[in-house]
Amino acid sequence: MIVSIIGLGLIGGSLAISIREKELAKRIIGVDNSIKNAEDALAIRLVDEIANIETAVPLADLIIIAVPVDQTKLILPKVLDSINNNSTVIDVGSTKEGICRTADQHHNRGNFVATHPIAGTENYGPLAAIQGLFNDKLSIICDREKSFDFAILQTERLYKSLGMKIINMKSKEHDLHAAYVSQLSHISSFTLGLTVLEIEKNEETIFELAGSGFASTVRLAKSSPDMWAPIFDQNSKHLLEALNAYIKNLQLFKKLIEKKQTKEIYNLMKEANDIGRILEGNKLIKEKQ
Amino acid sequence: MIVSIIGLGLIGGSLAISIREKELAKRIIGVDNSIKNAEDALAIRLVDEIANIETAVPLADLIIIAVPVDQTKLILPKVLDSINNNSTVIDVGSTKEGICRTADQHHNRGNFVATHPIAGTENYGPLAAIQGLFNDKLSIICDREKSFDFAILQTERLYKSLGMKIINMKSKEHDLHAAYVSQLSHISSFTLGLTVLEIEKNEETIFELAGSGFASTVRLAKSSPDMWAPIFDQNSKHLLEALNAYIKNLQLFKKLIEKKQTKEIYNLMKEANDIGRILEGNKLIKEKQ
Repeated sequence: MIVSIIGLGLIGGSLAISIREKELAKRIIGVDNSIKNAEDALAIRLVDEIANIETAVPLADLIIIAVPVDQTKLILPKVLDSINNNSTVIDVGSTKEGICRTADQHHNRGNFVATHPIAGTENYGPLAAIQGLFNDKLSIICDREKSFDFAILQTERLYKSLGMKIINMKSKEHDLHAAYVSQLSHISSFTLGLTVLEIEKNEETIFELAGSGFASTVRLAKSSPDMWAPIFDQNSKHLLEALNAYIKNLQLFKKLIEKKQTKEIYNLMKEANDIGRILEGNKLIKEKQ
Repeated sequence: MIVSIIGLGLIGGSLAISIREKELAKRIIGVDNSIKNAEDALAIRLVDEIANIETAVPLADLIIIAVPVDQTKLILPKVLDSINNNSTVIDVGSTKEGICRTADQHHNRGNFVATHPIAGTENYGPLAAIQGLFNDKLSIICDREKSFDFAILQTERLYKSLGMKIINMKSKEHDLHAAYVSQLSHISSFTLGLTVLEIEKNEETIFELAGSGFASTVRLAKSSPDMWAPIFDQNSKHLLEALNAYIKNLQLFKKLIEKKQTKEIYNLMKEANDIGRILEGNKLIKEKQ
């Protein structure tokens, strides 16, 4: 099988590593409109060769689109225009509704599978690609009834070979949940970073007072704006709902602190503690598999 | 040296482990008003014996108060009432101004050293105590000019033996910085946990969509309300300032998302990215020491 990967960042690059490691392809072609990314990817042998999109797509049995979600919407029709009948195209973006809508209008819709592998780090670029990134993680396939069976099969084979569990969702449902669970935590972290930077003019103090707790909460503020700005834009409706709920709860905390209602603050935190049980459950479920 | 530790939670317990490991005490006496905590601490040999505060304090050369900050304010005068002339009393609370004010009114103020070792995890209780918790971390000593030299020396010897770097601050200054860097991140995390729990009625979805990013951002929401409610209460003035700044920035994000000003969102995130450089600097500084 020949695999073409469009976008050689953390996700595209880590997919390349895993595909090579599992010997799923006889040839991996990389596409990236950043010359530096393309050179880096080739230098560390993420891919066998670099080509432009016009060459890479018709050659491939499997095309993976791993670029920011705004670019996915632009690239996807072009890719679907020039594939072979038996090729599969998957995207790995963090929003799904808009991308699926774009695909729905294309006569090769059936060759496309909309996916979201839930994996990543706060780092980006080909040099951030790591081995085993997808192992034991979850991948979501959206609107699977719109894809040809062979394309679904191909996609599932890929993710399962990488050690992933697969679940199915409607693209709309995916975007709602992703807003609350994933995207809201990115905004909360970006905003925390911003606020602390604004106020702590004395950087030395941040150095010194930053315990592991702060580092953990603010970690996502290091994420790529190129990736996340388009996600926030494409999922704005759900994200605004999530943000409103978050701000409302912060204002409740603020009011209780102002009024010195320590018992009520205690109770709110006790409620929030429940997230630990759920995350623990998550870990247990994953371990069981 | 005989050490009495009042409060056998994560911090008190981990101090006990380190003090024993470094052979700093010939006897460690534990005090805890929870019978379960006292029994657990004894069972895993964190301490050599359990005593009440009236017995434990006069016996000890070094008394460590490691209880929630509201209780510290109540216990500290009682402890200072019954110490020997040559004893040192330290507290390890996350707020310092109120505790120092309480101490300032006592005739044995000089025997007291106000400290804040920046170390912890989201877990609590004696069974959460871990070895090496303080190694390579920072401890802050507040208002050191109000402590006797021998008490400062004793305190510095303790923290240095544990592998900590020590810096000095005014208690007021400490509380301001701690609000922005440490306490704000706890509130942001508690609120994130609360918001996601409220909206994601279907717990299964949280299980499934929770990537490592969400888990990292929400980790502090598992922290102890017993410890944190009194901190928020005692540092309410600074914390409200920090919360206001945070909410203002969230509202800015929200407005930009509403208006689809993706370029401005991108720029805000780019600014926030700078926190990575600072945290990295922090790590480098720590590694250099």
